[in-house]
Amino acid sequence: MSQTIKVAVIQQPCADTAGEAMALSEDCLRQAAANGAQLALLPELHNGHYFCQEADSAEFDRAEAIPGPTTEKLSALAKELQLVIVGSVFEKRLAGVYHNTAVVLDSDGSLAGCYRKMHIPDDPGYYEKFYFTPGDAEPGFQPIQTSIGKLGVLVCWDQWYPEAARLMALAGAELLLYPTAIGWDPADDAAEQQRQIDAWQAVQRGHAVANHLPVLTANRIGVESNPQQASQNIPFWGRSFIYGPQGELIAEAASDPSGNPELLYAEINRQRTEDLRRIWPFFRDRRIDAYQRLITRA
Amino acid sequence: MSQTIKVAVIQQPCADTAGEAMALSEDCLRQAAANGAQLALLPELHNGHYFCQEADSAEFDRAEAIPGPTTEKLSALAKELQLVIVGSVFEKRLAGVYHNTAVVLDSDGSLAGCYRKMHIPDDPGYYEKFYFTPGDAEPGFQPIQTSIGKLGVLVCWDQWYPEAARLMALAGAELLLYPTAIGWDPADDAAEQQRQIDAWQAVQRGHAVANHLPVLTANRIGVESNPQQASQNIPFWGRSFIYGPQGELIAEAASDPSGNPELLYAEINRQRTEDLRRIWPFFRDRRIDAYQRLITRA
Repeated sequence: MSQTIKVAVIQQPCADTAGEAMALSEDCLRQAAANGAQLALLPELHNGHYFCQEADSAEFDRAEAIPGPTTEKLSALAKELQLVIVGSVFEKRLAGVYHNTAVVLDSDGSLAGCYRKMHIPDDPGYYEKFYFTPGDAEPGFQPIQTSIGKLGVLVCWDQWYPEAARLMALAGAELLLYPTAIGWDPADDAAEQQRQIDAWQAVQRGHAVANHLPVLTANRIGVESNPQQASQNIPFWGRSFIYGPQGELIAEAASDPSGNPELLYAEINRQRTEDLRRIWPFFRDRRIDAYQRLITRA
Repeated sequence: MSQTIKVAVIQQPCADTAGEAMALSEDCLRQAAANGAQLALLPELHNGHYFCQEADSAEFDRAEAIPGPTTEKLSALAKELQLVIVGSVFEKRLAGVYHNTAVVLDSDGSLAGCYRKMHIPDDPGYYEKFYFTPGDAEPGFQPIQTSIGKLGVLVCWDQWYPEAARLMALAGAELLLYPTAIGWDPADDAAEQQRQIDAWQAVQRGHAVANHLPVLTANRIGVESNPQQASQNIPFWGRSFIYGPQGELIAEAASDPSGNPELLYAEINRQRTEDLRRIWPFFRDRRIDAYQRLITRA
């Protein structure tokens, strides 16, 4: 494995149908590869409309198996472009058991691994508990080994949990990656919207610092209407980013309301994590004898 | 208890002897009270030189009991000024058992509680493992009840640990408070120094967001020489701050190289934590069934 990895984060709008949405992703993936990226991260559930704005059982028709059409298409692109691709699938595991699943295709086209979202949100406009069974991997929060390193892949709501980032780091992750779908409530005022977007970046920057790991986050961009209540919608806020392992901002995308795709790039030097853990050895001093309450509710 | 609390963070230089250092703290505490503060936070080990630059057994002479001279002085000031004071003491608990201990004096002068630093650093210039036995409270990470609320008091190196902040939040803390002594290595270049100070703020801002709690941090300011190697010293970087419970920056002190004291103020509305935990209910969705590895080394 080389000491440096060139990574790309894809911020894109997501069309309603899988075919249109995948065409957008494919364009971005080709562009990332043309620019030398060895790894590309797509947004959460990039292969269609964000259907969780309502709880509607008909929407389960969007789900698919893994492997299935989306992973097969991503696999072919990964192999052709010699690119590690982190994608996201509405997974049908069994009738009645559906997951929000990140998939990792290695640069030879093989399915390197999956991560089923562990923390499931449920808020007005984001009715994810209706659709997604929480992940149940044993042990949970395991990084996925690829040809370019161990990827600590998490999904969206996971990003608010220092526990998830720490567990991935303890299990040897070399990067943290978050496919994401998050936007504003148009009813909030501008100051509240600003605090929310800043909080979202801040908590993930904290994960970079606390674990000395780079953090890559790919968000959707553009406004998606609510199919049942046209007066409501989600303006996805974009602002995808890449932080280095000291929390330094390397690249940040815009909140472009026109919803154009935008790609971010960074050269990640994997030695930097090792160096930082020597000068500020947080992991040495964890008080594991006094952390038991972390596995309680309150 | 009132819905809002006015808090003050004291950034100060620390003189070598306890008498001189306490005189500086007293000036700042009187100023905080005169400006209406109900709570004031002092820096780590404010009552003297930062002696941990070298491992020198003679320095244990600085330690004192709790209650002892420093808490008695702080108690008298707390009562006179009707001010909750969070101070910091080099505690002698027993010959051979010394702690780095935060002390909380309630506004009636009573000792509301102590917190013995749990995570102990040990780096060139910060030989704290030589001096300080790690805290052993059972259960650990308990907030301290005062007349103005439950204070999640932690100390310096603890600030890098999301675990510590989370444990305090789970135990009901309403504020997180960090007395701190951190500075630059003069051998680092300016870019590295900037990354370090930014990382230090970023990780604590992350604690505010992840737990929806205000975070108050008081650092020392000014250059303190190393008594044994005059060519070395620590330029404490100041930059004390107050973040609100959404990670919003409320107040920030300078890195004034002349080492002048600086006070920060904020009005904390305790209802805001409750409101935020309703709109972004992170605590509802913690995966306590999958966090066991947090109590392991790796």
